[in-house]
Amino acid sequence: MEAVRRRVHHAVFPESPSRRVYGEEAPAAGQRAFEGRLGRPFELDQPTTGGRVGAEESPWGPELAITYPEPELDAMIAAAARALPAWRDAGPEARAGVCMEILARLNARSFEMAHAVMHTTGQGFAMAFQAGGPHAQDRGVEAVAYALDLQRRVPRRAVWSRATGRDRIETFEKEYVIVPHGLGLVVGCSTFPTWNGYPSLFADLATGNPVLVKPHPRVILPLAITVQVAREVLREAGFDPALVQLVVDTPERPLAKVLAVRPEIRLIDFTGSTAFGDWLERNAPQARVFTEKAGVNCVILHSTDDYRGMLANLAFSLSLYSGQMCTTPQNVFVPAGGIDTDRGRKGFEEVAADLVAAIDRLLADPARAGEILGCIQNPATLERIARVEEAAGADVLRPSTPLEHPKFPRARIRTPLVVRARSGEMDRYGEELFGPISFVVEADDVDDAIARVDHLLATRGALTLLAHATDAAVMARIEAMALARGVALSENLTGGVYVNQSAAFSDYHATGVNPAANATLVDEDFVASRYHIVQRRRPCREGGGGGS
Amino acid sequence: MEAVRRRVHHAVFPESPSRRVYGEEAPAAGQRAFEGRLGRPFELDQPTTGGRVGAEESPWGPELAITYPEPELDAMIAAAARALPAWRDAGPEARAGVCMEILARLNARSFEMAHAVMHTTGQGFAMAFQAGGPHAQDRGVEAVAYALDLQRRVPRRAVWSRATGRDRIETFEKEYVIVPHGLGLVVGCSTFPTWNGYPSLFADLATGNPVLVKPHPRVILPLAITVQVAREVLREAGFDPALVQLVVDTPERPLAKVLAVRPEIRLIDFTGSTAFGDWLERNAPQARVFTEKAGVNCVILHSTDDYRGMLANLAFSLSLYSGQMCTTPQNVFVPAGGIDTDRGRKGFEEVAADLVAAIDRLLADPARAGEILGCIQNPATLERIARVEEAAGADVLRPSTPLEHPKFPRARIRTPLVVRARSGEMDRYGEELFGPISFVVEADDVDDAIARVDHLLATRGALTLLAHATDAAVMARIEAMALARGVALSENLTGGVYVNQSAAFSDYHATGVNPAANATLVDEDFVASRYHIVQRRRPCREGGGGGS
Repeated sequence: MEAVRRRVHHAVFPESPSRRVYGEEAPAAGQRAFEGRLGRPFELDQPTTGGRVGAEESPWGPELAITYPEPELDAMIAAAARALPAWRDAGPEARAGVCMEILARLNARSFEMAHAVMHTTGQGFAMAFQAGGPHAQDRGVEAVAYALDLQRRVPRRAVWSRATGRDRIETFEKEYVIVPHGLGLVVGCSTFPTWNGYPSLFADLATGNPVLVKPHPRVILPLAITVQVAREVLREAGFDPALVQLVVDTPERPLAKVLAVRPEIRLIDFTGSTAFGDWLERNAPQARVFTEKAGVNCVILHSTDDYRGMLANLAFSLSLYSGQMCTTPQNVFVPAGGIDTDRGRKGFEEVAADLVAAIDRLLADPARAGEILGCIQNPATLERIARVEEAAGADVLRPSTPLEHPKFPRARIRTPLVVRARSGEMDRYGEELFGPISFVVEADDVDDAIARVDHLLATRGALTLLAHATDAAVMARIEAMALARGVALSENLTGGVYVNQSAAFSDYHATGVNPAANATLVDEDFVASRYHIVQRRRPCREGGGGGS
Repeated sequence: MEAVRRRVHHAVFPESPSRRVYGEEAPAAGQRAFEGRLGRPFELDQPTTGGRVGAEESPWGPELAITYPEPELDAMIAAAARALPAWRDAGPEARAGVCMEILARLNARSFEMAHAVMHTTGQGFAMAFQAGGPHAQDRGVEAVAYALDLQRRVPRRAVWSRATGRDRIETFEKEYVIVPHGLGLVVGCSTFPTWNGYPSLFADLATGNPVLVKPHPRVILPLAITVQVAREVLREAGFDPALVQLVVDTPERPLAKVLAVRPEIRLIDFTGSTAFGDWLERNAPQARVFTEKAGVNCVILHSTDDYRGMLANLAFSLSLYSGQMCTTPQNVFVPAGGIDTDRGRKGFEEVAADLVAAIDRLLADPARAGEILGCIQNPATLERIARVEEAAGADVLRPSTPLEHPKFPRARIRTPLVVRARSGEMDRYGEELFGPISFVVEADDVDDAIARVDHLLATRGALTLLAHATDAAVMARIEAMALARGVALSENLTGGVYVNQSAAFSDYHATGVNPAANATLVDEDFVASRYHIVQRRRPCREGGGGGS
């Protein structure tokens, strides 16, 4: 709670996948646990039709063949409703305690989770461990901290006295109870199922709401393990495990739309496409809807005092997890006249060529490149890369190439595609092109670049903006635009912190201002909408006793 | 801020319309100020077509004939957008200071406001003074306190350091800026325009949002004065008065729907009918919508140790402002077998008759009765009373009668209609029948009463529930039902505090749980949805200086 108020660096769970931290046996035990799940039915004792579903494929190649119980929605919704009152009555502290125990047990399984995240999202192992494990768990803790802190603002009781007439004082005892808004639906995404899902799951739970967790049909296992652990802790703590249930669907019979319009669903959290996010915002008026959607993240280059640091930092940002982060930049605006640097003036063509060279350098070693790039999660992204590359023709600055991984010969790995465009060609770069697709955009000058980004932020939105400028007046104009459009701005990154990264307890992820999201992970609004306060009051009788 | 955390009795502005408090000259000056507005154009230097509109009529009789500038919506919206950045950049403390100055100046005009509220809503003078003046102002202060307290949770800056590699520490300076969600629309109601409007207006303003205030077309003056004062203070403080603008419409050309769907409108606050509230919740997905709608407030009588106190308290609640409060009870459930009291067992018929007698006693003196009842605000309510009375036939326990006020011979004053019903006849009492219309409902027993109220809360919602029971087990069942349905429960009221009353800083008005409202006046959710946090971060260079 103190960390989110001060927003300094803070970590509850160690991010290093190291034996020294997690124990000598942890890596092997995690791998065994993951492998033990392959080719088997995943067991969850929740309402089911008796059928089994599951269609996950590892982008790294290995067979998964895990099946999950087909959900029986009516029975699940009824079970969640029955579970609610005891969870509500437990109060904020007890709920926070149970949530923290769930998170601690998830942390103990971080190696197993890393394999689960790696083989569903396609991330490299180290990233899958960090983003899927401790970083996601910290985001969960952050939500619990907000929830507890806000709920504690409401006193459980108050004694209220006032004069209601001459010489007459009336004294009342008042009680205030936190009640949950209602059944939550968390719709998971295909790239960061735990990192994007935990804030919602734990904000719902910590404020008293039962939750249905509906993973992406191709990325189920990380959230299935999460649900299994949550149910185990809830049961041990004497609560109904129906407070957290897993709804697995298939691409052929998706259930998010079916659930979203049910009157019992009162909270919906969604990370994914703009089309479905907008649909939810318009078609589920019975629920409070929190969305993180697509956006067009941009970079503005004006000047730098560390040209090589800037290029290396940017090359890494464009390559990491093959641009499949919602925070990855897509459009790098460079003034036609070039940029001032510590190595002299660099023209547009030179900056573009140097950026390509920096990417090539970063990815020179195939094993390291595979770890940075990870795999292409969705085959549709391969088609998108090919389409953009073909359409770009002579504007291709760097073609996307397959990369053979020494350990995973069937892995879908592609290096980044880099394309040149002019700022007037917004039809080419003005939409989110998810995946390792970047544009180096030639702007008339820095103010043209600012105006283009401003327009993109207003119409498409974005989660991040990166700017390089040593000129204070230029940076001030960029800051003013970023503030007006509500985008998180990173300035002059040249070291080991990347624009893609958002640190729990310190960085607000998304703002709710521009079209890329209608909420923030995590702020007061993200949590306070999930519960209400119901009061009762009665006159104090002699001795202050209540009326009942 | 401390008061809302402790929720004890607190008042910023004195509620007594007394010369000792407000000064010897205040009553006469307030009356002169009000009378000086009659028959004149109300001046506001905001964008207008040049036309004049206004259709207010005093339910007490006097001619008002005030006209207001016809709004030019496009120009107003553009002016609000221009005013936003400086107000945002002023920060939470400056905004809170300006809001408090507006409220202090409104307080100084409480006598003028009392006449304005009285002659538009039809309230008696004392109530118009209290509810329209200091109580409403205190609700405004409450919203400002919440807004400042929550915004202060976000630090303006943080220094963030972490290891990003072996022996490498990266240190960042981060800045966090509160940005408003966007242009607000406050749709005023016809009964408590300031009390219901101030929390929204000041929550919007204090979190940085410009506001369009659209009063009910028959109850304009109280909010027009409010807007005039707000603009005067804003201008003096160096801000653009376009931050608060008045949109007056007419019953023939209503503007709430027109404005609500405009993309520029990002916040909507509405108090009024369920039909329009539901419409807003479904048709303005671009905005955050806060609604307080209709509900069916109930009373459950089971037992009491102060029969006369109970009857007197309930008679007052049913009579006050002729049942035109959103918190007035409508249905009084009494078990067929009667209730236990300190005066022995009282049968159903006896309780019903004694309640009618208590109302008659309360209203015996016409001058005092007129002050308690006030006028019927809307002529449609007169038709509703007549319709219900005619349909009730032999079930009329107490007919509604006109009351001649010694000072206001043309005033629309009616005494309460009381009708008998059986709990199975939910088609008779199961909808809100706004105005002085009450049912004494014969229930099979207390559990039948609880079940009926439970059903009404689930399907129609309510803001209040009053229960009388000396039996702890019975009260516990009522409490459990009230909690599950999210309604504020008042227990065993027999003195000078009434179920209709909701005290600023202590009582939460509405819960957002049941269908009567989707928000609470005032809680964290009511305020936190109105702003966002936008950050920027940059590496600290030598000496900790920023990158720009």
